Amino acid sequence: METSEEQKYGVRRLEMSDKGKGFIELLQQLSVCDSVSDKEFEDRFRELSSLGDDHVICVIEDHVSKKIIATGSVFIEKKFLRNCGKVGHIEDVVVDSSTRGKQLGKKIINFLTDHARTMGCYKVILDCSIENKLFYEKCGFKQKEIQMVRYFV
Amino acid sequence: METSEEQKYGVRRLEMSDKGKGFIELLQQLSVCDSVSDKEFEDRFRELSSLGDDHVICVIEDHVSKKIIATGSVFIEKKFLRNCGKVGHIEDVVVDSSTRGKQLGKKIINFLTDHARTMGCYKVILDCSIENKLFYEKCGFKQKEIQMVRYFV
Repeated sequence: METSEEQKYGVRRLEMSDKGKGFIELLQQLSVCDSVSDKEFEDRFRELSSLGDDHVICVIEDHVSKKIIATGSVFIEKKFLRNCGKVGHIEDVVVDSSTRGKQLGKKIINFLTDHARTMGCYKVILDCSIENKLFYEKCGFKQKEIQMVRYFV
Repeated sequence: METSEEQKYGVRRLEMSDKGKGFIELLQQLSVCDSVSDKEFEDRFRELSSLGDDHVICVIEDHVSKKIIATGSVFIEKKFLRNCGKVGHIEDVVVDSSTRGKQLGKKIINFLTDHARTMGCYKVILDCSIENKLFYEKCGFKQKEIQMVRYFV
């Protein structure tokens, strides 16, 4: 019996051992990430884990190659606004360039969006390039504002 | 001797007693925030305070009227990306409609930006309307991406 797509590409939370499965190399497809030691990875992993459900990083592992091929994160911001409301912020979504077209990005976004809803958020937001707008619209998002940035380094 | 503008409009961190100084009413000028009880305010205040320097809300108090007339917040997101980098997210910036034109918004943004820099962030980001783009450009920001949103309620 063949492995179903669902079994093959299930979404789960990041684990400490994922550094050895190409998690950092995957992030490099998104932005600079060239020198994370095992110690630094473990420290940051523990720091984020201590936030529990308020900061979740999810991954998809290819169980044939044993590589992490998609990831994304969401953290829960607690506000006074909106009657002490909460907002989910989706960040760092990336799908391995060799495995696109399998709806893995959509699986990641659905997982993170479901998490934000479960946590009681009144909305979930993210920033993306104009090129990715259509993808996020297919995931149920709408364009609202513009993102401004100030770099320090 | 007259009170200087700097003394009159200094930026400080939010205090528990600021609910009685119109802090919630100020937020109402930005978005819905119509029913926050003292208990809810205190619980959320303690929850955010427990995050220490990773979540800071600042305010400007008018020492004549004893009212909060400007506020903004920043939280520090910890990533694996950018070699375990940090990003400051500025949220919920509002200046009382009757006291605009005194550069209070700029004071708030400078305070929050300085905090993010001090915390070791490689960048600070925020989402705003097209109408506010010029204001943030004057604060040293540049437009980068677009914001996408999905509402649950």
